[in-house]
Amino acid sequence: MEVNTERYGEIYGVDISTIREAQVRISPFIHTTPVLTSETLNCTAGRKLYFKCECFQKGGAFKFRGASNAVLSLDLDQAAKGVVTHSSGNHAAALSLAAKLRGIPAYIVIPKNAPNCKVENVNRYGGQIIWSEATMQSREETANRVLQETGAVLLHPYNDKRIISGQGTISLELLKQAPLIDTIIVPISGGGLISGVALAAKSINPNIRIFAAEPRGANDAAQSKAAGRIITLPETNTIADGLRASLGDLTWPIVRDFVDDVIVVEDKEIIKAMRLCYEILKVAVEPSGAIGLAAVLSDSFRGNAAWKDCHHIGIVLSGGNVDLSALWDSLC
Amino acid sequence: MEVNTERYGEIYGVDISTIREAQVRISPFIHTTPVLTSETLNCTAGRKLYFKCECFQKGGAFKFRGASNAVLSLDLDQAAKGVVTHSSGNHAAALSLAAKLRGIPAYIVIPKNAPNCKVENVNRYGGQIIWSEATMQSREETANRVLQETGAVLLHPYNDKRIISGQGTISLELLKQAPLIDTIIVPISGGGLISGVALAAKSINPNIRIFAAEPRGANDAAQSKAAGRIITLPETNTIADGLRASLGDLTWPIVRDFVDDVIVVEDKEIIKAMRLCYEILKVAVEPSGAIGLAAVLSDSFRGNAAWKDCHHIGIVLSGGNVDLSALWDSLC
Repeated sequence: MEVNTERYGEIYGVDISTIREAQVRISPFIHTTPVLTSETLNCTAGRKLYFKCECFQKGGAFKFRGASNAVLSLDLDQAAKGVVTHSSGNHAAALSLAAKLRGIPAYIVIPKNAPNCKVENVNRYGGQIIWSEATMQSREETANRVLQETGAVLLHPYNDKRIISGQGTISLELLKQAPLIDTIIVPISGGGLISGVALAAKSINPNIRIFAAEPRGANDAAQSKAAGRIITLPETNTIADGLRASLGDLTWPIVRDFVDDVIVVEDKEIIKAMRLCYEILKVAVEPSGAIGLAAVLSDSFRGNAAWKDCHHIGIVLSGGNVDLSALWDSLC
Repeated sequence: MEVNTERYGEIYGVDISTIREAQVRISPFIHTTPVLTSETLNCTAGRKLYFKCECFQKGGAFKFRGASNAVLSLDLDQAAKGVVTHSSGNHAAALSLAAKLRGIPAYIVIPKNAPNCKVENVNRYGGQIIWSEATMQSREETANRVLQETGAVLLHPYNDKRIISGQGTISLELLKQAPLIDTIIVPISGGGLISGVALAAKSINPNIRIFAAEPRGANDAAQSKAAGRIITLPETNTIADGLRASLGDLTWPIVRDFVDDVIVVEDKEIIKAMRLCYEILKVAVEPSGAIGLAAVLSDSFRGNAAWKDCHHIGIVLSGGNVDLSALWDSLC
């Protein structure tokens, strides 16, 4: 299959050049995360699995790649006024950390129902928290107010070329660490992670298959792919609190054109996969982070026409920021 | 300081050559485990920390290094009859896996009070379980009976030159991955792990400091170092179930001569360190595995005369086989 990757930038706003530039920009500051393998999980899956451990990334999730690329891309005047975001968690922590790196303020609008461990992460990295109600409307209004008061730059958690380019650096690392990979499974929410990963991977090797993993209770990406347009859900219901966002106008075209299929899994499959990550891989992932393994082990993936051709599967363990109070309560 | 490492083999039965030979023997079969770092934990400790993640080793603990070195060292006739051990956990799983690798039987004597997750690991790797009572006497008698019936080779979990040499390969990897390290903290139980690590590290760089980390409720190594002879305790009481063994006649001389000091910590410090491993590093360790971090953060280490000279500290996260039922019960 011949692909003219040169036009990607023109069409999608992001291409392998912007991703390689991001890599040069952020590599002194990020962790090159390890790829773990497990014979036990290979046997369970009947495939060779390669776990890209973005939960070990700074801030505990892949988000620091995009956030640091965006913050380091700002010119001096923009940067001086700081950055703002409204995010339920990992992007907020990542942006706080990236801003701290550059010595500029990060204003973080957080809904009151955000998990405590994610709020703690923002505090740890010096972000200035501004609380909002749980609705998207309140989050956006609060962020706009902060923008007007401070002149800071709004950095969207995923619908931003710099963010997408940053997340794409995962594929540059992963395909170097595990060159046999023919398939990559990526959690999907707003689409920033999978857009970057898919665009980079298919630019390097157009034959690589990219699958999105999505929870049944927030399956807007699966519905969007089926409808051929962005579908947003009136409400979501899933244990994977990081996967409740909807696609944006930058991520949707990339998801539409580069993601082979969306594998939808139940929450109970996510919990089972999470348990395997802890008990077999010894990696502390959050539910959203474990969904890629859930997808690989699901009946719906095994029933997919492409399954027979997926031999070496990369799985992005996207984050590890989870509240384990129950565990510590049981020990103390 | 000039050191004649050539005589180590003569004195201790193990030297850098037997450790390098072990590395050649086992490296096709083991994981080269990653070294993780965390700015957050560096700030907490006031030192640069390098976490050697042996919980990601096959079988979930460092034990596979020694076990595979021992099993692969057996001659054909010995190997054909299989191997036996009486172990409460990680050595049992590791030996089962090593035996499976060579296609020979592993007979595993397990006391009835062993944690369930460690029993499951033995089952997973095809070890044949023979139950004993919880006392050491019953364990040894049962193992002897199996020896007589099968002609298999008894492989002690730590008091064995091949086992010590295998564990020593950790230092060969670690000092290559993090060459600035000036101090290594290692959990101590029977002493197999720390003997190998200390002997290898001090053969490569005699200025490296080696500290043992030991729970208050099983502090026989600290007592032994103070008394200048092996002290065994009538009973132990600690959450770190992997650290209840006593030093052996092979490990004691190495611990006596190569371990700079023993840092004794309380169980509550172990639980706190374990929590940091999960929440900050995102690594699922068992209590015994987290004790090195507990030691680094303890007042007793900070009060140690050597603390001011410990700048780059390697911490061996020795294993991750822990029963997390409470966590999964809270999710389901």
